[in-house]
Amino acid sequence: MLRIAVLGCGRIGRMHAANIAAHPRAKLATVFDTHQPSADEVAARHRVDAAVSVDAIFASADVDAVLIATTTDTHADYIERAVAAGKPMLCEKPIDLSLARVNACAERIKGARVAIQLGFNRRFDPGHLAAREAVRAGEIGTLHQVIITSRDPAPAPRAYLEVSGGIFRDMAIHDFDLARFLLGEEPEEVFASGSRLIEPAMMQEIGDYDTAMIVLRTASGKQCHINNSRKAVYGYDQRVELFGDAGMVISGNRKPHELARFSAAATGAAAPFLNFFIERYRESYEAEISAFVDCVERSTPPEVGFEDGRKALVLAEAAIKSAAEGRVVNVGEIG
Amino acid sequence: MLRIAVLGCGRIGRMHAANIAAHPRAKLATVFDTHQPSADEVAARHRVDAAVSVDAIFASADVDAVLIATTTDTHADYIERAVAAGKPMLCEKPIDLSLARVNACAERIKGARVAIQLGFNRRFDPGHLAAREAVRAGEIGTLHQVIITSRDPAPAPRAYLEVSGGIFRDMAIHDFDLARFLLGEEPEEVFASGSRLIEPAMMQEIGDYDTAMIVLRTASGKQCHINNSRKAVYGYDQRVELFGDAGMVISGNRKPHELARFSAAATGAAAPFLNFFIERYRESYEAEISAFVDCVERSTPPEVGFEDGRKALVLAEAAIKSAAEGRVVNVGEIG
Amino acid sequence: MLRIAVLGCGRIGRMHAANIAAHPRAKLATVFDTHQPSADEVAARHRVDAAVSVDAIFASADVDAVLIATTTDTHADYIERAVAAGKPMLCEKPIDLSLARVNACAERIKGARVAIQLGFNRRFDPGHLAAREAVRAGEIGTLHQVIITSRDPAPAPRAYLEVSGGIFRDMAIHDFDLARFLLGEEPEEVFASGSRLIEPAMMQEIGDYDTAMIVLRTASGKQCHINNSRKAVYGYDQRVELFGDAGMVISGNRKPHELARFSAAATGAAAPFLNFFIERYRESYEAEISAFVDCVERSTPPEVGFEDGRKALVLAEAAIKSAAEGRVVNVGEIG
Amino acid sequence: MLRIAVLGCGRIGRMHAANIAAHPRAKLATVFDTHQPSADEVAARHRVDAAVSVDAIFASADVDAVLIATTTDTHADYIERAVAAGKPMLCEKPIDLSLARVNACAERIKGARVAIQLGFNRRFDPGHLAAREAVRAGEIGTLHQVIITSRDPAPAPRAYLEVSGGIFRDMAIHDFDLARFLLGEEPEEVFASGSRLIEPAMMQEIGDYDTAMIVLRTASGKQCHINNSRKAVYGYDQRVELFGDAGMVISGNRKPHELARFSAAATGAAAPFLNFFIERYRESYEAEISAFVDCVERSTPPEVGFEDGRKALVLAEAAIKSAAEGRVVNVGEIG
Repeated sequence: MLRIAVLGCGRIGRMHAANIAAHPRAKLATVFDTHQPSADEVAARHRVDAAVSVDAIFASADVDAVLIATTTDTHADYIERAVAAGKPMLCEKPIDLSLARVNACAERIKGARVAIQLGFNRRFDPGHLAAREAVRAGEIGTLHQVIITSRDPAPAPRAYLEVSGGIFRDMAIHDFDLARFLLGEEPEEVFASGSRLIEPAMMQEIGDYDTAMIVLRTASGKQCHINNSRKAVYGYDQRVELFGDAGMVISGNRKPHELARFSAAATGAAAPFLNFFIERYRESYEAEISAFVDCVERSTPPEVGFEDGRKALVLAEAAIKSAAEGRVVNVGEIG
Repeated sequence: MLRIAVLGCGRIGRMHAANIAAHPRAKLATVFDTHQPSADEVAARHRVDAAVSVDAIFASADVDAVLIATTTDTHADYIERAVAAGKPMLCEKPIDLSLARVNACAERIKGARVAIQLGFNRRFDPGHLAAREAVRAGEIGTLHQVIITSRDPAPAPRAYLEVSGGIFRDMAIHDFDLARFLLGEEPEEVFASGSRLIEPAMMQEIGDYDTAMIVLRTASGKQCHINNSRKAVYGYDQRVELFGDAGMVISGNRKPHELARFSAAATGAAAPFLNFFIERYRESYEAEISAFVDCVERSTPPEVGFEDGRKALVLAEAAIKSAAEGRVVNVGEIG
Repeated sequence: MLRIAVLGCGRIGRMHAANIAAHPRAKLATVFDTHQPSADEVAARHRVDAAVSVDAIFASADVDAVLIATTTDTHADYIERAVAAGKPMLCEKPIDLSLARVNACAERIKGARVAIQLGFNRRFDPGHLAAREAVRAGEIGTLHQVIITSRDPAPAPRAYLEVSGGIFRDMAIHDFDLARFLLGEEPEEVFASGSRLIEPAMMQEIGDYDTAMIVLRTASGKQCHINNSRKAVYGYDQRVELFGDAGMVISGNRKPHELARFSAAATGAAAPFLNFFIERYRESYEAEISAFVDCVERSTPPEVGFEDGRKALVLAEAAIKSAAEGRVVNVGEIG
Repeated sequence: MLRIAVLGCGRIGRMHAANIAAHPRAKLATVFDTHQPSADEVAARHRVDAAVSVDAIFASADVDAVLIATTTDTHADYIERAVAAGKPMLCEKPIDLSLARVNACAERIKGARVAIQLGFNRRFDPGHLAAREAVRAGEIGTLHQVIITSRDPAPAPRAYLEVSGGIFRDMAIHDFDLARFLLGEEPEEVFASGSRLIEPAMMQEIGDYDTAMIVLRTASGKQCHINNSRKAVYGYDQRVELFGDAGMVISGNRKPHELARFSAAATGAAAPFLNFFIERYRESYEAEISAFVDCVERSTPPEVGFEDGRKALVLAEAAIKSAAEGRVVNVGEIG
């Protein structure tokens, strides 16, 4: 049983704690949050003791690994401290909003022996994973195009958006990682276009976009289109299409059930899609924990690691530059 | 070019006339209707002369074949006359509402050399046909169960229903033929249950049902369920499911286009199904003419002939008896 | 926290134990199985002590309620003992294979104050439940027809089938309960037809069927068709269609993910359906525990109780008689 | 009855001739082709006389209108001649591959009174049209993003590709028109990326691409993505997605029938999509003729005219420039 401590007891930390507690090969060791009542609540729910400090966790002999689900600005520090403490970690994305900070972190942890798994959970979604496996199995021949549709059900509050790093770093970052995962090749060119259509005035004020289209291209000419929106009223829209010279696979959206309604007005009308990431990616989050336990138990490299987090951020930076300058940006220009 | 005369210029005769006119190997020879303006209109539309009488058609050397789309009570007579005149025919279903009359007709035309094709057009529906082909090709292994859903979009007027012969003879007759076609074996046992749910008072008065469920069974134990309703507000509901020990095929409904709507209330909402037989079975009616031209040109037996019409009526009679007596009726009890 | 003891640590008891352990308002108190290693394994997994006997459980002040997941032949006894001990219970279906035994049990527990919930989990399936709610909300107008498709992925072993009570008592029993739930009226007439198509010789020997079609009818004329097969190679086939004079709803099958494949041979090809009840009804089993906790905490009657279990068995007996005699059987003839 | 002459009896001219012949308010007047046997065959099929020359057609008092389906390099000339002869025309797309030639033609026909309808048939597709109507009706709120998927089933022969004008002028031209139609606003910025993935060597030699991704943007910030490929083995892939702040509509692909197959390997597997434009857009081509007859009869402007043809070509030129220069091209830079 891998004894995992959870740092951060917000919405996502809470979910990870429950997944760890339910996992047959993992055990929730302890939890921590700067907001003590949150930590206490999660601790009580799973009958463990809350940790008195992060220091205590890193020092504890009863903690085999840590899951970092604190605020983004603490991720890089905690990664460095976990490396120093020799604790394998599963760290929520992103590593940091600043590429300079990420690069500095990379420098400091160079040669680290402990597993650093990044929380790009979508790679573990059963549908997206089956899509990737189909390509690997040759089902669609040579991959030519990838289309990623990624739209949130509703815009986050302004307070969140202001510190989010913007649509490319905050939202598209998942899609950049997915693009790399699905393409099986590194994108070399990035084109991005941002629009302010949902809340134009606010977007203008905070210098962000709420709607975006991106085109990536690899050295061999494979193409990937990503479209993003902060507001899809029909639910969280998460689709992946892989097109090749021998076929296509599409990983579609999930609904809460398979009820179809037929009336004088419409046929086959189903429920809106699962509303947001906790529900939509329930199985991915569970599988992510399994993969982490596996890589620690077997001393294998994580399925998705630190460098993947850094590369996704490089693509986000390239997209920001492309949207600003109206031209293709080479990934080499960034980092 | 097979020169075909159309007898009866109602809704269905009109459609057949247009299909014949557009067919590359057929030619509309002439048309007839007891209601002269109807005949004139169809004749003008296709630039042919309307016939002065049915006699003239049967006597004409310029008519190679006839399509009988007159009222049901004339079908058996016209079949006998067409046989006498040596004209191959495509006759709309049913042969007659009276099994005795059908049997008498069978007696009189015994040994007829001309092709008699019955208008069970659903056998030619591309989806239903592909389902049958899949079974023949062994795709679902041995067929075990057939489910036929057959619901009209709205009840016919009372005047029609009163002379229709009842739901089993008028509506389920198509499904009985389809069941025989799809099962590939003769049903030996019939169970039927009729209900009065849409217009109970009127149904009671005319001694008919508007809702029905049927179970057929062949000697080898294959089962077929048919459900009927006179009122499906979401459009003409015409589905066929074939289930076997190695798989299943389902021939579904057709819509006017493939638009899907996604809103805060529903996802994947499509248009109602094509409203009625002329639209839904457009391709079947076209294919039926082709099959008729083929069987006349090649002197091959029709895909669906007089005896098929008789056997479907026998099943309808068995269903009527079963619904009345609350027991399984053996086909042998009827005819 | 409701402290629940689980009796029976087979496949289904194990699943219930995990669901209880993960439930926010329930706690796994203890477990019991006549096969000690099974009980020990489940106890260890959830860090509880296995009970030394059923007596100990019924006598324990630390057990608030019991979940009965032992073999069918013990259900009625344990129900009687739980009633005597004043412990509310969730009992797996069926109550017993013998209607006489069930009636005797009913007599003995008459006036019982503790909740007796029957394990007809399908009533809690999100899709089936949404279908029922749609009818209640008037979405399809007056309900006219119900079609239940219920096919297992593969036949159970002969040893199981021999003591199963036959296809109507063992398999269709779920569908009879679902029919009652969905019709919202009691079926009064039953017609059933059984076939031996998958393993005819074995079925003949044990006097059972592997394929069945059923038609139920309520006093008001509502109709319900059920079709059953022991072998659907494409996965566990569990569909419910509710048809009314203002529309239709269909609760369809669930797949492990939403991947669709497009090739030169086929479009939209998805994965086989979830293979069997543990996977397909995962959410139903979870919701069933919640409903049980609710009814105990609030002292409300269970959503599905002892009499529902008895009535489903009455319908099964009627189906057996109907299949043997080839006629409609009135429920009043049975019990 | 509008008497229409068809110029060009290739595959598409032949189809138009049949549609005109079958149209209730149109009549096929005559046909012409430089390859006499083709003209004779189509004339015989529809029992009309083939014209001896194009001059004869333009001079004929028995010809009310012309349908131009000759080779692309003759379109502009015939448009000018039809204008001079006062004959309304339906001209197949594109007007010409050279924007200079199109602009010269525009100059020469300035002030023309006769209807000039361009053959952008996709605007008449029932699904695409219903999508556009849904937007107009406010169903999806304000339109934000359009995604057009447009992939041919198989690459055309090299001989065709060499004179086609390239993927943007030949293939994407339809999508550019559809984008303008669906966006309801003029695109102002064009980004395009071309790849050589299907037949890289040949594409290199002829200086063309076989795979492309495009992003368009209007002044208000609406975005449109188009993806193209010359080879979709699962059939002609023609999808349109319209996304707005209150919902989404998707116009999907059509299949020859609605058969779904279920096996141990896959569920819901349908037939490949209709293979190419004649089949896929059958109804669009019919509706296009109706719209043409309407605009001539009622002296209303055509739904899609000369300037639409010119603007689509401007977008194609912008795409070519963008793909070459790796930057956003403003439409104003082109024409």
